[in-house]
Amino acid sequence: MPASDPSPSSSSRSPAASDGPPYSGLLEVDESVVDDIATLLTEQQRGMVLNLVADLYPADVALLLRRLPDAEAGRLFRWLPPEMGADVLAEMEDAVRAALLDDLRPDTLIDLIDALDTDDAADVLADLPDRVALEVLPDLEDAADLTELLEYGEETAGGIMAREYVALAPDQTLQEATEAVRRSAADVDDVYTAYVVDEAGTLLGTLSLKQLLLSAGAVKVRDVMDADFISVAPRVDQEEVGRVVQRYDLVSVPVVNDTGRMMGRITIDDVVDVIRDEAEEDMQLMSGLTGEEETVDSAVQVSRGRLPWLIVGLVGSGLSGTVIGAFEATLQQAVVLATFIPVVTAMGGNAAVQSAAIAVQGLGAGELWLSDAFKRIGKEMLVALLNGIVVAGLLCGTVALLGMGDVTMLVATLSLTMLSVSLVATTNGALIPFLLTWLGVDPASAMGPFVTTLNDIMGLAIYFLIATALYL
Amino acid sequence: MPASDPSPSSSSRSPAASDGPPYSGLLEVDESVVDDIATLLTEQQRGMVLNLVADLYPADVALLLRRLPDAEAGRLFRWLPPEMGADVLAEMEDAVRAALLDDLRPDTLIDLIDALDTDDAADVLADLPDRVALEVLPDLEDAADLTELLEYGEETAGGIMAREYVALAPDQTLQEATEAVRRSAADVDDVYTAYVVDEAGTLLGTLSLKQLLLSAGAVKVRDVMDADFISVAPRVDQEEVGRVVQRYDLVSVPVVNDTGRMMGRITIDDVVDVIRDEAEEDMQLMSGLTGEEETVDSAVQVSRGRLPWLIVGLVGSGLSGTVIGAFEATLQQAVVLATFIPVVTAMGGNAAVQSAAIAVQGLGAGELWLSDAFKRIGKEMLVALLNGIVVAGLLCGTVALLGMGDVTMLVATLSLTMLSVSLVATTNGALIPFLLTWLGVDPASAMGPFVTTLNDIMGLAIYFLIATALYL
Repeated sequence: MPASDPSPSSSSRSPAASDGPPYSGLLEVDESVVDDIATLLTEQQRGMVLNLVADLYPADVALLLRRLPDAEAGRLFRWLPPEMGADVLAEMEDAVRAALLDDLRPDTLIDLIDALDTDDAADVLADLPDRVALEVLPDLEDAADLTELLEYGEETAGGIMAREYVALAPDQTLQEATEAVRRSAADVDDVYTAYVVDEAGTLLGTLSLKQLLLSAGAVKVRDVMDADFISVAPRVDQEEVGRVVQRYDLVSVPVVNDTGRMMGRITIDDVVDVIRDEAEEDMQLMSGLTGEEETVDSAVQVSRGRLPWLIVGLVGSGLSGTVIGAFEATLQQAVVLATFIPVVTAMGGNAAVQSAAIAVQGLGAGELWLSDAFKRIGKEMLVALLNGIVVAGLLCGTVALLGMGDVTMLVATLSLTMLSVSLVATTNGALIPFLLTWLGVDPASAMGPFVTTLNDIMGLAIYFLIATALYL
Repeated sequence: MPASDPSPSSSSRSPAASDGPPYSGLLEVDESVVDDIATLLTEQQRGMVLNLVADLYPADVALLLRRLPDAEAGRLFRWLPPEMGADVLAEMEDAVRAALLDDLRPDTLIDLIDALDTDDAADVLADLPDRVALEVLPDLEDAADLTELLEYGEETAGGIMAREYVALAPDQTLQEATEAVRRSAADVDDVYTAYVVDEAGTLLGTLSLKQLLLSAGAVKVRDVMDADFISVAPRVDQEEVGRVVQRYDLVSVPVVNDTGRMMGRITIDDVVDVIRDEAEEDMQLMSGLTGEEETVDSAVQVSRGRLPWLIVGLVGSGLSGTVIGAFEATLQQAVVLATFIPVVTAMGGNAAVQSAAIAVQGLGAGELWLSDAFKRIGKEMLVALLNGIVVAGLLCGTVALLGMGDVTMLVATLSLTMLSVSLVATTNGALIPFLLTWLGVDPASAMGPFVTTLNDIMGLAIYFLIATALYL
């Protein structure tokens, strides 16, 4: 019964739905689990709740807290053992987290944050009210590291890196290196690679655990390390980090400043989140949202976020309207022309979005370069011509069959219009992403309401100019 | 000079552009590099070409092959040392790969495929013409494994898993385990975790290299392994695998069939590609593309892929037109009404897409459940009311200021229309993704031309019904 499936879209699509659960090793948090735990919480059944929750992964506890009524969520969070509380904190969305941390005493807050890796700790601090953040910061274990991390933009390599990593010296033997890994194991999670740094903190090379495991103990780190490694600069946009990690199949990437100093490392799990976030942001830009709307936002927040684009749309469509208004005489002459207004705008809108989408993706993935603009647009115009002919043919065929209005005039007007609109709109769609990229703007906005409106205006102008020329 | 920047969008946005390259350890493949190598290739400068290419990562060589003229690309690929050729093959898009493999002799092809991991080998085979695939398959090292992999859908866990993994026995000591890892190191890349299986091949637990490194050699695998691990079923949709890996921060996930047998493992680098692909597919669905258009496709391929949606759009907008046509009498009465057709459709389209986007993302991320439908839609209607009032206010204000047509009538018509359109469209936008999900269809299609058109029709009907009621 899909109603209680937390991820219905794909599992209902995938055959897995029919033959057993899609994955094992997990207690699935669904409607009924949430309800049961809610009841136990109101009944103050601490023991039973903690037993149930003990089987859950932090991400699922975070989901649980998101679904529970505020009072129950607060209680559960206070009941969680500190270690788990911290892990869960790292998995929560900002909005939910803020609500839970609001009514915590500073010292509890400090214990929680101290239990986090510096990258997560920095996120939590960044989301706290400045007053609170400034109050707790000095008393935190990693106060110095955190102050440094907070100086980087939240969406840069420096903003998503963690300060914890396993450091080795180039002249250590692998035996000693193994010892070093053992010692740091406690406070560094998911170690796949150790970083070889000199006294000055300059990154000399990387050494994978596999390599460490494979070579003899007497060998020197310097002799087995990988000296030509990929690193990113602290101020690089996180989207760029995602692209590098994906392109070169990395599991973690060191962050190195321009003097070659090792600043920290970014692990794949954070990169995966970045890729997902950036994709969601693009989709929102395409849809005329601010790119930050969350499902938990209040109606007023949502309304405020959406209004700007609705108003842009209003102004733009107002202009389209003015175009129509300017041709009232022509319309009086043949009201039938109004019937085709949606056809003209639909053709323009769809053709433009299609060619824009593919350009946006190509540019985003680095498959298309700015220098490809002309080749690309040439190709799109060819496509536009082909599609324009087919669509115009279908449309005019229908008009002729139905014998609408003054058929010959109408067919002449529409065929000319559809062909030109297809050409203009498709070219716009392909051109604008290159333009935006060149200007340093996210090309995904090329598919937002703004461009659609632009195409409506041009399409209608073309339509009525042709019509007027033929009819009057 | 952005023209030669392979990833301009983000690097031109990020401050990095100003202070040095965004990342180091890479020779950036740009326009000039491509041109130089192209020249050397035409001049048959084998030595110099291979020297240059030796510094490139496989992904960059793949990009290079993609940018080179076919003749030069073919030559470079034939010149590559077999090992590198295979690595590059694994990084290529299907279209490019097919072209290059076309003119290879079967035995060369076999050497190349044998050098690949089974997951990549299976992809390559799947893309080969059946005739060729069947010809080479029997002579491949992993023929048996590959035949099994090819039985799974390309977009399922079984389709993206590799058969290679490090297997340990529960009663081995860690000393012996380390030996086992050393032995398998040659043919298993990126090892982060070893898998503990019994004689029957049942997966009992997992052991991370870190754990292996940290514990004493005399300890038994059974005593340190992680016995409660997450695994996925072979037939699970790859999108679901991506969700699990992201949600639980995994670097690799074992694929286990319903009898508990270990089938293979999926590594994070493949999951990252899946997440990116699924995001691109969603964006294409939203834009009225088939979800498979590649930047390298020919104009005719592209045209064929886009026409279906353009025709859907044509039919849909034709219906919108019919709606307008049905009210010709009203239009004759007040041609000014035509001026507001774009305003009405824009409001409907934008409002719907906004509410659809957020629902699609929530459902995709598992933040929204089917059971949330009513709560969600209620909230959206509240948003629609707020935005409807503001937009209607602005529009009517303008109309009054400009004193267009019969102001009072027009204001009455437009305010009523904008409010109802906002409500109807927003509700549609939020409702349809839930509906599609419940039907097991990818909700992203909720933002394609189909739904936009539906909203146009409803919006125009509302508009002219109200107008007719008031004007006639």
